[in-house]
Amino acid sequence: MTIADRWLLPDGMDEVLPPQASRMEELRRGLLDLYYRWGYDQVMPPPVEFLDSLLTGTGTDLDLQTFKLTDQLTGRLMGVSADVTPQVARMDAHSMHHQGPARLCYCTNVLRAKADQHQGGRSPVQVGVELFGHAGLEADLEILRLALQSLKTAGAGELHLALGHIGIYRSLVQAAELNRDQERALFEALELKSPGALAQQVEASVRDPALADMFRALGRLHGGAEILEAAGEAFAGAPAAVAEALAQLRALHRGVSEEQPEVEFYFDLAELRGYQYHTGMMFAAFVPGYGQALAKGGRYDDTGRAFGRARPATGFSMDLKLLATLVQSEPPCDGIWAPEAGEGIAEAIASLRAGGHRVVQALPGQATSPEAHRCSQRLIWVDGHWQTQAL
Amino acid sequence: MTIADRWLLPDGMDEVLPPQASRMEELRRGLLDLYYRWGYDQVMPPPVEFLDSLLTGTGTDLDLQTFKLTDQLTGRLMGVSADVTPQVARMDAHSMHHQGPARLCYCTNVLRAKADQHQGGRSPVQVGVELFGHAGLEADLEILRLALQSLKTAGAGELHLALGHIGIYRSLVQAAELNRDQERALFEALELKSPGALAQQVEASVRDPALADMFRALGRLHGGAEILEAAGEAFAGAPAAVAEALAQLRALHRGVSEEQPEVEFYFDLAELRGYQYHTGMMFAAFVPGYGQALAKGGRYDDTGRAFGRARPATGFSMDLKLLATLVQSEPPCDGIWAPEAGEGIAEAIASLRAGGHRVVQALPGQATSPEAHRCSQRLIWVDGHWQTQAL
Repeated sequence: MTIADRWLLPDGMDEVLPPQASRMEELRRGLLDLYYRWGYDQVMPPPVEFLDSLLTGTGTDLDLQTFKLTDQLTGRLMGVSADVTPQVARMDAHSMHHQGPARLCYCTNVLRAKADQHQGGRSPVQVGVELFGHAGLEADLEILRLALQSLKTAGAGELHLALGHIGIYRSLVQAAELNRDQERALFEALELKSPGALAQQVEASVRDPALADMFRALGRLHGGAEILEAAGEAFAGAPAAVAEALAQLRALHRGVSEEQPEVEFYFDLAELRGYQYHTGMMFAAFVPGYGQALAKGGRYDDTGRAFGRARPATGFSMDLKLLATLVQSEPPCDGIWAPEAGEGIAEAIASLRAGGHRVVQALPGQATSPEAHRCSQRLIWVDGHWQTQAL
Repeated sequence: MTIADRWLLPDGMDEVLPPQASRMEELRRGLLDLYYRWGYDQVMPPPVEFLDSLLTGTGTDLDLQTFKLTDQLTGRLMGVSADVTPQVARMDAHSMHHQGPARLCYCTNVLRAKADQHQGGRSPVQVGVELFGHAGLEADLEILRLALQSLKTAGAGELHLALGHIGIYRSLVQAAELNRDQERALFEALELKSPGALAQQVEASVRDPALADMFRALGRLHGGAEILEAAGEAFAGAPAAVAEALAQLRALHRGVSEEQPEVEFYFDLAELRGYQYHTGMMFAAFVPGYGQALAKGGRYDDTGRAFGRARPATGFSMDLKLLATLVQSEPPCDGIWAPEAGEGIAEAIASLRAGGHRVVQALPGQATSPEAHRCSQRLIWVDGHWQTQAL
């Protein structure tokens, strides 16, 4: 093995060097402080769990993304966390004893066997919040607002919010009484965003002509807030749950716009990401120049059922590594360069550090310049005591 | 699978709930800020690397502790980081271009297939610092001081420092011209701390009577600073490197004691932990009431050689999870409880949060009390605007 080979890192398993690591740390603190101010308490889920627990109630996508390990202590299969959300739902269901709403946040490394189709890395630092125990629109609105606030904290200017609601498609499928194969074929046609494929599947599977029209409409209903009006007409004869979902989308649009009128909305009623998982509104927040969403979330009630306590749940998550690329700050050049020795130098340095200053002490024989260590001042001995002097 | 089974976590893979998670976050920030003030820049090593790179230049202990994964993209074996130190050495050797000393720090999750003999968990949060590029005693002293300062930051009162130097044993073994089997047998006898086993191995392997005396003395030389004097006599005829190692221990003792006279020293010249790895002084810092060391470190020159750049190195690391059990702070009960609706309530809440306050907004139909959300005030509508009122 050559030295060059040893330098190679697996694809998507990145190291973070200074100053980007400090930017990530700064953003981590900014976000966790933001969540604290909104009433969210931090938790740290286990990085590894038994596979059965980890994947209970989640979809096959997560299974494929999860690295598997054998526990040498028990011989049982374990999985490395690839998504913190179901873990936090378990913690809410089992480890915590909140009767009413519980607000939790986290920031932790996860690993993915395969990179997410829409995200580059296999080692994201997942940061996010979950609000358990409240099924109302107010909880969804709080989550949406907090997601947008998170992106602003990272330095995002222009924000685009893609909003959908899984309840529309789900209700139509139920009304059309599709079998599993028909549903899957229709799902794939919608995911392809191909009107031709959609028309073909609707023709083949949906007998009721009114419902068939509605499925075809689903493929067209994406765009600004005006499509919500068009949807009201297209789904006039749909099950009540469809009207309810549309009303929720309208209320979320109104609630966010009142506070942040500058946010650009995009609605896609055929958005089916996380279909196995979500139960209500779903969203993704974008910033121009980034091809992928910077925050993704939505409602996912009842994930805790497998752990004995079904609770309403809504939340979002982001990749801190990706998000920190928005942070523009340059590391400060505010250090004080101290000589390697001198009378009372240790006390002088300790006192400056206790006052919050960065003091870099020279080491004997060291040739590098103070500037390389981001120092703008130096300690010098004047009139019997140590003083700082600009470099 | 029953619900109770799903609750079980693998041994040593813990979750951290509030308020302990906030204490860990607080300590994480306190330590990284401390390291910043001492001139250390943060890095984030990759959580997974190809096994060859990850274990290059490290011992078999680390191999046994490393979880192995197959990379689905290349079919190559990867390892999950079980110890950040060799990774940071690789980053210094390859990714960074410091010519002189480089000071780096980190705080990250690691995973261990087996718990360390002396530490409980398999999912520590490893936090520590490394100083590369300086072989002198000043660098070791800075690391020792910073380790003690770290424990103080966590709230430790009484501190015990166990100090040793691998150069003493290594020089004696070299002088005695032992073969591999003899060296291993002697090593095991010393690790057992059994005078009988040691005497037997020395008898069997060491022909030179003066050296045999020295090996026997090694087994006795542990205790306070007074054993350094005894060692000076016992090793009077030893190779020069032994005298050099003893001089270093004396200087480190003096350097730390001048600044922190309250630290209790314990010297053990037969301490061989990390023998395959360390090249100079080694230390472990203890706090009464904890059976295991809270910080461990030492000199480990030339780890970067396998990556094409051998550099002197010294540093230490700690487990943030364990260390945070020292933190005594209670989470503040300083939140402001806000009603679910009202004229201008969103603006009032936003303004309080922007001012750094924690504001928890009630959700419709919520029965829980403000106190459960750590609120000590509530927002009420008085004379046409929102005001806070003590609960």
